Amino acid sequence: MTTSSKVGAGPSVVMVPEGDNRPRKVCPDCGFIHYRNPLVVVGAVCVWRGRILLCRRAIAPRHGYWTLPAGYLELEETTVQGAIREVREEACAEIEIERLLGVYDIARISQVQLIYAARLKSDAIAPGVESLEVALFEWDRIPWDDLAFPSVRWALDHYREAGDGDDRATRSNPPGATGDMRRPG
Amino acid sequence: MTTSSKVGAGPSVVMVPEGDNRPRKVCPDCGFIHYRNPLVVVGAVCVWRGRILLCRRAIAPRHGYWTLPAGYLELEETTVQGAIREVREEACAEIEIERLLGVYDIARISQVQLIYAARLKSDAIAPGVESLEVALFEWDRIPWDDLAFPSVRWALDHYREAGDGDDRATRSNPPGATGDMRRPG
Repeated sequence: MTTSSKVGAGPSVVMVPEGDNRPRKVCPDCGFIHYRNPLVVVGAVCVWRGRILLCRRAIAPRHGYWTLPAGYLELEETTVQGAIREVREEACAEIEIERLLGVYDIARISQVQLIYAARLKSDAIAPGVESLEVALFEWDRIPWDDLAFPSVRWALDHYREAGDGDDRATRSNPPGATGDMRRPG
Repeated sequence: MTTSSKVGAGPSVVMVPEGDNRPRKVCPDCGFIHYRNPLVVVGAVCVWRGRILLCRRAIAPRHGYWTLPAGYLELEETTVQGAIREVREEACAEIEIERLLGVYDIARISQVQLIYAARLKSDAIAPGVESLEVALFEWDRIPWDDLAFPSVRWALDHYREAGDGDDRATRSNPPGATGDMRRPG
């Protein structure tokens, strides 16, 4: 069965369902209501002896740019489990989670990103199917001009800022920053 | 238009769509793929002169039990905006967010809860449509045996534990606690 072989409308009519207070997309054929909700992204700043793991994206958006291993949380998964899974999938690496580094709102695209600080268990890394290459970078060698998303920069800065000491406070968006790549600033 | 008046199947066939790696529910009539994802709950521990705001639920689940003002994050909303909105909707109250108190995983029901610590701007509170009543409780008068969910207890304990000092660390689930109300412990 090819899912694109059917020609019905799907949930395409915008209306407020009975008992609801917001417009939703409803299928005119079967009445299915498509509730859309914000998505949770989980990932990690993963460190091996002072060097930071980055992955060069093999997928859109921002193909070819460098990012932290991160992706959508799956059903019935804790955020820590999700971060560990994403590092495994994108960099074939094993980590130990240390703390929740940042919670970032990217409201325009309805994303909440939870980025952990983590320790790599070894320097054994390799590109997963969504990565062109993976590498461990000294701070001064990070490809700052080729990072995929603003929140990658935020998490790296917040990791650096916290240092190795007692500062375990979870960070949020830098003041005024929305993460919106369509509007600079 | 009554959305329940149609009799089509909707997304009811479980299959792995092309290019995907997990089973999803697909509509046999139109091919619509229903991607389900974890949901984000936002809320707050709201305090007025040492007293804590709780709401008695007018809705299922846990009708009649006490909870923190909290609910699902909406599209294109930051988590802070969502927490402020939920306090407004459920307790007709205005708050100032102080910090992110806890991030709790309730994996069995695919929820990530972000609970802020907040200051009430006044003691003007009133039940919203989803609350039977709202009240400000001294710590020792909190109805501990009638709290709606385990994570309400966690957030209250974490608020108390942090105190008024410099401890701004964001908390997570207590060790071993899943928040699963079907399995005790």
